[in-house]
Amino acid sequence: MTEATHTVKSYEQELERLRGMMARMGGLVERQTAQAVKAVVEGDEEAAIEAPDLDPEVDELEREAEALAIRILALRSPMAIDLREIVAALKITGDLERIGDYAASIARRALKLDMDGGISLIGLRSMGRLVQDNLRRAIDALAARDRDQAIAVWQADTAVDELYTAMFRELMTYMMEDPRNIGSCIHLLFVAKNLERIGDHTTNIAERIYYAVTGEMLPAVRPRGGLGPQYASATVPDAR
Amino acid sequence: MTEATHTVKSYEQELERLRGMMARMGGLVERQTAQAVKAVVEGDEEAAIEAPDLDPEVDELEREAEALAIRILALRSPMAIDLREIVAALKITGDLERIGDYAASIARRALKLDMDGGISLIGLRSMGRLVQDNLRRAIDALAARDRDQAIAVWQADTAVDELYTAMFRELMTYMMEDPRNIGSCIHLLFVAKNLERIGDHTTNIAERIYYAVTGEMLPAVRPRGGLGPQYASATVPDAR
Repeated sequence: MTEATHTVKSYEQELERLRGMMARMGGLVERQTAQAVKAVVEGDEEAAIEAPDLDPEVDELEREAEALAIRILALRSPMAIDLREIVAALKITGDLERIGDYAASIARRALKLDMDGGISLIGLRSMGRLVQDNLRRAIDALAARDRDQAIAVWQADTAVDELYTAMFRELMTYMMEDPRNIGSCIHLLFVAKNLERIGDHTTNIAERIYYAVTGEMLPAVRPRGGLGPQYASATVPDAR
Repeated sequence: MTEATHTVKSYEQELERLRGMMARMGGLVERQTAQAVKAVVEGDEEAAIEAPDLDPEVDELEREAEALAIRILALRSPMAIDLREIVAALKITGDLERIGDYAASIARRALKLDMDGGISLIGLRSMGRLVQDNLRRAIDALAARDRDQAIAVWQADTAVDELYTAMFRELMTYMMEDPRNIGSCIHLLFVAKNLERIGDHTTNIAERIYYAVTGEMLPAVRPRGGLGPQYASATVPDAR
């Protein structure tokens, strides 16, 4: 094997290792989010304990991925699409770490809920399902470097925001009706807010994937009511 | 001027430009945070409007800083401390952008507050002052690449968390006492939470500065009651 082949090969190996770390991080925060939602809507205590327990592993993976990204940047001077992918990795690991944090925070609140007041969890269940679904699709898009999937994820977050607004009103009503509900409703409000933030970070990940793959940025503001047909083409108008 | 001198010079210029962008971003989110706190504790409507108005400029600076960082990575292949600084910049702009988002969110809530229910804002005022003070010091540490200042900021966040917990209890009491307070108290709870999150991101920035300057990471978990004397030395134990 020549020296050049060897260098190229280990470069590809390092990039693959970085991708593997991101996939593991993605899998872990997906698991954390699933367990957090389960803890709240099913009152599952084991799930409530597992979600925060996974946090140190996620944090450690973020550090490792960053160290590897820096190593690749220093030793390989990657260009164009590889460089964008590594920069995206640095940003995406940050988003994944935040998602893990929010999931852990949701799970911790689940342990404090007192659901005797007849508070409905239907809204939260839908929101949880939607957020998890979007997160899963974002992590798939990351592994497949799939720009169309990234756009789909980016667009789907509007529904999460709408569910959040509806839940906010519902929980306010429960509190007004019976002050004994206040404690649990506050926790549920924060749960809903944290799910909404997980949705935001999922959107960020989709934007990063799109940029890494295409070299173009999605618009800064997501248009209400979906994107026009121009987003089916390879070029997206500059956001400025 | 030789070609080599010219290259070195424009490399330094580009790094200085990146630092300038970070400083501008830092100044903007400091301003957003100050206006957000003012909006809530003084009921200042102009301040409440200004904080979210600055958001697009912050977002745009994040994009520009990222584009410049990628450019420097691609064309200059920086090594060691410069490489760490650029990677830190990519992460820190993300934290600054989130801080701006939280400040904007606080300011928007300020417009919805009805403070006729005799709710005390003393706790929030202290929390706001502490968070702003810490943010200012983090941004100064960033400009000066000052590791000692970074450690000080990192340590100071414990006080923010304690104030948050106290505020949470206080606001719960107001709600229990009089359901008419619920609406405003919910907004204030989210304001307090957002200030706490600004504190978290400020801590992240401090960790990044420390790493960029020293090549070492601060421990993953901040010890309660302050750091021991070993943190006065140049080496920090590995967090793993």
